[in-house]
Amino acid sequence: MLIVALDAVRELERAETLSKIVESTSQYVSGFKIGVGVLLKHGLGVISTVKSISSRDVIVDLKLADIGDVMKSTLELVASSGANAVIAHGFVGVSDALDKLIERARDLGVRVILVVSMSHRGSEEYIDKHSEELLRDATQLGVHGVVVPATKPWLITRTRSVLGSRVLIYSPGIGVQGAEPGDALCAGADYEIIGRLVTTAPDPLSAVKTVRSAQLEKVRACRGFP
Amino acid sequence: MLIVALDAVRELERAETLSKIVESTSQYVSGFKIGVGVLLKHGLGVISTVKSISSRDVIVDLKLADIGDVMKSTLELVASSGANAVIAHGFVGVSDALDKLIERARDLGVRVILVVSMSHRGSEEYIDKHSEELLRDATQLGVHGVVVPATKPWLITRTRSVLGSRVLIYSPGIGVQGAEPGDALCAGADYEIIGRLVTTAPDPLSAVKTVRSAQLEKVRACRGFP
Repeated sequence: MLIVALDAVRELERAETLSKIVESTSQYVSGFKIGVGVLLKHGLGVISTVKSISSRDVIVDLKLADIGDVMKSTLELVASSGANAVIAHGFVGVSDALDKLIERARDLGVRVILVVSMSHRGSEEYIDKHSEELLRDATQLGVHGVVVPATKPWLITRTRSVLGSRVLIYSPGIGVQGAEPGDALCAGADYEIIGRLVTTAPDPLSAVKTVRSAQLEKVRACRGFP
Repeated sequence: MLIVALDAVRELERAETLSKIVESTSQYVSGFKIGVGVLLKHGLGVISTVKSISSRDVIVDLKLADIGDVMKSTLELVASSGANAVIAHGFVGVSDALDKLIERARDLGVRVILVVSMSHRGSEEYIDKHSEELLRDATQLGVHGVVVPATKPWLITRTRSVLGSRVLIYSPGIGVQGAEPGDALCAGADYEIIGRLVTTAPDPLSAVKTVRSAQLEKVRACRGFP
C-alpha cells in the first residue's frame, strides 16, 4: 500500500542515512522508489544496496522520456543493478519509444510503470489533455502499472475503470504536494508513493507507521472494511 | 556547429575511451552532450572529467520531465559537477515545473534547452501536436535553446521563424536516425548533435572531420557561402 520515495537528495546524501531508512521501514512498506537525484549522487550501486537490505521491490524513477534505443540502454543499466521496475513517460509515444522499452523490459523481467498524469499544475498544460489516450496506450502496451497523482482522485477512479484490476495504480503527491494518506487508495489506487513525509522526518519509521495508520483509517472509512 | 553526443553506453564503457574521444575531437566541435546512460555508468564525475579535458560546453541530457523541485535538485547536482546546460522536456509544462527549473538555472548560470520535438516516430503521437505551444513556452520562458530533430527540417525552419535568432536550435537525429550532416543547418539549426556516427567509429577524430566536411559542403550549397 505504501512505497517510500527516496528522492530527497540533500537528506539522503549520506549512504548510511539512506540504508537506515530502508532497513527500519522495510517490513512496513511495499517497495522503494529511487529518484534520479539519489541515483546520480550515489551511483547505480544504490539499487543493489537497497536490494541487499530489503526484499521489497525497487522502482527506478528516471521518468524515462527518450527515443527507444536510449531508454533501452538505460533500462539495461538499472536492470543489471537489480531494479524491479522503471517509470517512463507515456507522452513520449509508443512507436520507436515505449514499444522498444517494453519489449526489452519483458526480456529482462523488469516491469514498466507509465506516467499518465502528474501532481504539479503544469501537468494540465499538455499531459492531462491526453490522459484518455495515455490510458489506451497503457492498455495496449500491457504495462504493469501507471502513475496517477493522489491530487486527482477523479482520474484515479477513471483509470481504474478503464484499466480494470490487472494494472496497478501508483499515486504520488501525498504530503508536501497536497493529498493526504489514504486519499488515493480510497479513489482506487493500489500504492501511495510517499517521499519527504518519511525521508525528511526525524524518525522515518515512526513517520511510516503514522502514514500506515492514516491510510488504514481512511480506507476503513471509505470502503467500510479494512 | 557540431555537438558530439556521448550516449553510447557500451562503446563508452571504458573511461579511457570516452576521454580519448573528447580529447581528440575537442578542437573540432562546439560541445559535448552527455546522456543519462553514460552519466549513470560513470557517475557525475564524468562531467568534470570532460570539463578537465576540454574547454567546450557540456550539455547534460537527462531529458528532465519531473515536478519543479525534483528537476531543481537534479540541476543542482549536475551544475555542481560543472555542467553548462541541461535538456528538459517542454511537455512537462511550465507551472511548478519548467518555471522553477529555469529560475534556479539562472541563479546557477546553467542554460536550459527545451525539447520541442523528437526524432522517433512516436513524437508525432503527442509531443508534435503541441509544437506551436511549446515554441510559445520557449519564448516566454526565455530559454537558451530548443531541441528540434534534423529529421523535421520544416519544423526547424518554423522554429527559427518563431523564435528569431536569439534562441539556439540543437538538432539530433543525424546518422543512424536518418538525416545527413548539414541537413539541419541548412534548415536553420545552429548545432547538429551527432552521436553514434562519431562515438562508435573506429576513428572518432576522422569521423568528426568527415562530418564537418559534409556539413560545410552542404551549407555552402544551400546558403551559397561557407
